[in-house]
Amino acid sequence: MSDIKLLETFPNPRPGRDYLIEHTFPEFTSVCPKTGQPDFATMVVSYVADKECLELKSLKFYMNAYRNEGIFYEAVTNKILDDLVAACKPRSMKVISKWGARGGFSSIITVEHSA
Amino acid sequence: MSDIKLLETFPNPRPGRDYLIEHTFPEFTSVCPKTGQPDFATMVVSYVADKECLELKSLKFYMNAYRNEGIFYEAVTNKILDDLVAACKPRSMKVISKWGARGGFSSIITVEHSA
Amino acid sequence: MSDIKLLETFPNPRPGRDYLIEHTFPEFTSVCPKTGQPDFATMVVSYVADKECLELKSLKFYMNAYRNEGIFYEAVTNKILDDLVAACKPRSMKVISKWGARGGFSSIITVEHSA
Amino acid sequence: MSDIKLLETFPNPRPGRDYLIEHTFPEFTSVCPKTGQPDFATMVVSYVADKECLELKSLKFYMNAYRNEGIFYEAVTNKILDDLVAACKPRSMKVISKWGARGGFSSIITVEHSA
Amino acid sequence: MSDIKLLETFPNPRPGRDYLIEHTFPEFTSVCPKTGQPDFATMVVSYVADKECLELKSLKFYMNAYRNEGIFYEAVTNKILDDLVAACKPRSMKVISKWGARGGFSSIITVEHSA
Amino acid sequence: MSDIKLLETFPNPRPGRDYLIEHTFPEFTSVCPKTGQPDFATMVVSYVADKECLELKSLKFYMNAYRNEGIFYEAVTNKILDDLVAACKPRSMKVISKWGARGGFSSIITVEHSA
Amino acid sequence: MSDIKLLETFPNPRPGRDYLIEHTFPEFTSVCPKTGQPDFATMVVSYVADKECLELKSLKFYMNAYRNEGIFYEAVTNKILDDLVAACKPRSMKVISKWGARGGFSSIITVEHSA
Amino acid sequence: MSDIKLLETFPNPRPGRDYLIEHTFPEFTSVCPKTGQPDFATMVVSYVADKECLELKSLKFYMNAYRNEGIFYEAVTNKILDDLVAACKPRSMKVISKWGARGGFSSIITVEHSA
Amino acid sequence: MSDIKLLETFPNPRPGRDYLIEHTFPEFTSVCPKTGQPDFATMVVSYVADKECLELKSLKFYMNAYRNEGIFYEAVTNKILDDLVAACKPRSMKVISKWGARGGFSSIITVEHSA
Amino acid sequence: MSDIKLLETFPNPRPGRDYLIEHTFPEFTSVCPKTGQPDFATMVVSYVADKECLELKSLKFYMNAYRNEGIFYEAVTNKILDDLVAACKPRSMKVISKWGARGGFSSIITVEHSA
Repeated sequence: MSDIKLLETFPNPRPGRDYLIEHTFPEFTSVCPKTGQPDFATMVVSYVADKECLELKSLKFYMNAYRNEGIFYEAVTNKILDDLVAACKPRSMKVISKWGARGGFSSIITVEHSA
Repeated sequence: MSDIKLLETFPNPRPGRDYLIEHTFPEFTSVCPKTGQPDFATMVVSYVADKECLELKSLKFYMNAYRNEGIFYEAVTNKILDDLVAACKPRSMKVISKWGARGGFSSIITVEHSA
Repeated sequence: MSDIKLLETFPNPRPGRDYLIEHTFPEFTSVCPKTGQPDFATMVVSYVADKECLELKSLKFYMNAYRNEGIFYEAVTNKILDDLVAACKPRSMKVISKWGARGGFSSIITVEHSA
Repeated sequence: MSDIKLLETFPNPRPGRDYLIEHTFPEFTSVCPKTGQPDFATMVVSYVADKECLELKSLKFYMNAYRNEGIFYEAVTNKILDDLVAACKPRSMKVISKWGARGGFSSIITVEHSA
Repeated sequence: MSDIKLLETFPNPRPGRDYLIEHTFPEFTSVCPKTGQPDFATMVVSYVADKECLELKSLKFYMNAYRNEGIFYEAVTNKILDDLVAACKPRSMKVISKWGARGGFSSIITVEHSA
Repeated sequence: MSDIKLLETFPNPRPGRDYLIEHTFPEFTSVCPKTGQPDFATMVVSYVADKECLELKSLKFYMNAYRNEGIFYEAVTNKILDDLVAACKPRSMKVISKWGARGGFSSIITVEHSA
Repeated sequence: MSDIKLLETFPNPRPGRDYLIEHTFPEFTSVCPKTGQPDFATMVVSYVADKECLELKSLKFYMNAYRNEGIFYEAVTNKILDDLVAACKPRSMKVISKWGARGGFSSIITVEHSA
Repeated sequence: MSDIKLLETFPNPRPGRDYLIEHTFPEFTSVCPKTGQPDFATMVVSYVADKECLELKSLKFYMNAYRNEGIFYEAVTNKILDDLVAACKPRSMKVISKWGARGGFSSIITVEHSA
Repeated sequence: MSDIKLLETFPNPRPGRDYLIEHTFPEFTSVCPKTGQPDFATMVVSYVADKECLELKSLKFYMNAYRNEGIFYEAVTNKILDDLVAACKPRSMKVISKWGARGGFSSIITVEHSA
Repeated sequence: MSDIKLLETFPNPRPGRDYLIEHTFPEFTSVCPKTGQPDFATMVVSYVADKECLELKSLKFYMNAYRNEGIFYEAVTNKILDDLVAACKPRSMKVISKWGARGGFSSIITVEHSA
């Protein structure tokens, strides 16, 4: 199950400089809470780190932990932003989820946080 | 027949944050009120939710209910915006309908609402 | 022969809202007044309706009526704008005609009206 | 030989309105004054007419008359602009010539006039 | 091992003029400090030189020296910027690293310096 | 050997008008001063002429004269700009050199002059 | 409801010659017999006529008559082939149906008849 | 868990005719039996039916049942072919699985059966 | 260092069937034995298994082990084929290596084995 | 100057196997013997080695040695084939030269040898 404790960070190697980090994960999958059918998305996380950076392997385990979780598009996109912000306290962060067609609909959810 | 009662909503999981939700539905079809021939469109709905989000499966049933309804492009695009606004009372919403060629013409209707 | 009386309108279903209507007609044809040879164009009509909308089937008949008329690119583009404005009295309207190669030349004429 | 007298005009059908006319001619050819070899270009003429419009067939004859004329890229582009301006006295005009590779070089010349 | 001493410079041939130099290196490789597996990136270095320019062959040796070094994406991108700035003291410099998919994620790090 | 004397000019046919001239030369080659190996580039020269224009055939001979010259990317791009400026004294000029991969790196140098 | 009697034909204008006729109809829609949800397909009909050709407007009415019929992909594709063969008795005919994504699957059915 | 009993069939609507049925499913996912990490594939199933056709919704449930199963690429592609052949006894069938990059490798497995 | 012992296999799950397995690895790197500079290639391995299949994670470790080995293109492509054949004794196998530009040259080596 | 002695070979690592080696060199340049102007080509060399393979760095020096040689397209393509055959005595070899536009023409020369 998804768990913020899966997320690890490492010290920002250059905290005195504002710079942009962007990770794209085309293999996100969770489950529709209404139908029980699988959903598929590409997740794009971009942020300016403050003291901590997100460690990539732990970020993968965190993302993969949604595999069997029933959760709406809007909820999971906001929860990922909230968890990542809590884990690494960035200067700013944006999460975009792009969902494959479901019942004929394809969807995009865009959420942002700034410190 | 199309009916606003088909629309269901669920509580916005993060009402304190302004964020963008966009659904694209390439399989909309209704009927020309003048000729009785079928019309086909791609419907794009994008909005910033306030207290409620549109539930996707009910949105599909709502869209599919226009299948045998005779209605002009301009009327159906405005009616969908009005119904969705009434159902989820968003902070802002835009509906774009892109219609396949009919009598040689292809058409695009763009309507917007802000609270 | 082209005739403004061919144009029909219907009441704007949502006159209280400013929204954009765009019709693209890739099958326009008229005749060169100088050589008698056929000309072909794509006509793009976009407007914000006021009280009336252009009915699409009548618009097609209106466009098709230019088929055997000898008229210059510049004249027909302006005449279409003038006729459509007279028929539906829009808040604003733009007509773009894109003409296929004739004697090696391809041409684009862009005309606009605002109330 | 190229000659401004080849150019014919006809009265602007809608002189009270500012609108854009654009003609593209991909088959222009002249001769290099230094080597005697043929040059090939695409000519793009765009203008806002005042009282007169350029008649397209005469414009073609005018363009084709450069076929055996030895003239530099810069000179012919400016001369065409000057001749067209003299012929139809537009509110504004732009001529762009895009030349195919010659000795390994390809070239683009852009000239503009406003009244 | 990576070493700033590998970097050579030569006098800017035109120090009185601000101009842009951009080098793209699609064959960067280093090692993940966590898994020991190789990482692959395209490195783009762009800068305005002051008194010194980066010599390209030494820059290649400098880049290739990361081949067996265990280092995070964020750290290596910042370290390259810091080393190159120290070596040639540019008026401004930007380094972008674009990393191939690792565990399903692809990443882009963008860092900038100005004097 | 490259020599500014190879450059010929001819009088600007329309000195009273500001207009843009752009020449692209994809077959530039010189020699790396460090390794003696050949370098290949596309050179793009764009300028607004004042009294004189660059004659294209002489420009080709001037470019070809770098064929066996050992010279850095940054130096040759600046030297070409300086020579062309000296030869035709333009109102403004830009030279961009885009170099094919050498040791894995591809490079772009952009220099500008204004009178 | 779909009905072979909707189909009209006209005499093949050149029965002595074998030639290929192909009609593509991207706006086919029927209903899933299992879920009641709409299905969408592009239908491609190609044939060599014998004595009779399919009249296009009647073919459109025939296709549109499936709009509210519950029928599997395989059945409808075979039924259309059988009906069209019965109506115009071609020398040979092929029908290909390409179905939009449904539950993540997109499907193509290809059926052929020769006399 | 994956189970051949999930597969339903319906009678081939036209058993007297050989015709091709092709289903493409871009959302297949299973688990690597060695690392426990998720794998993603596009599955393409094409066949000539004999007495029975594969029902699409049951095929989706069958495919989705691999979601948490640890199984090698080669094994799952062969197992799917064997199960589908057992379920509908086709005249011939081909299954192609195209796997997303894992550890830098992307893979394609192609298996065929004929009766 | 590269070592055939790094390669693991697992029993072919369906030895009674001839089917095609193809793995593409775009991140191969070794070292030029003459210059000591790194080389980069895409390796494509395709084979029909007999009793054993190549395990993918061990194949990755085997490929990565060439990272610091000095070896010619022709030698490494043949050695990989020989090692993979020895490890899994396939019915047939092909290895294609596509090498990035080195000194201006790009190269492709294609080797095949059949039992 | 071009010289067969520049070519080095190394023992074919797998002489018992027929396999294909292909080198592509997009930076070939020589001089037109008639005009003295530079010519540019992409050279593609493909061969099946017997006892010896062509060493790539020496092949580059051999190709670069044509830089200032005046030679016709047909002559240089045949001479390269003859020299490479003499140097490595392949089982078969093909050389294709693709020449950039010169006077409006682009050319391709294809020569083959088999033992």
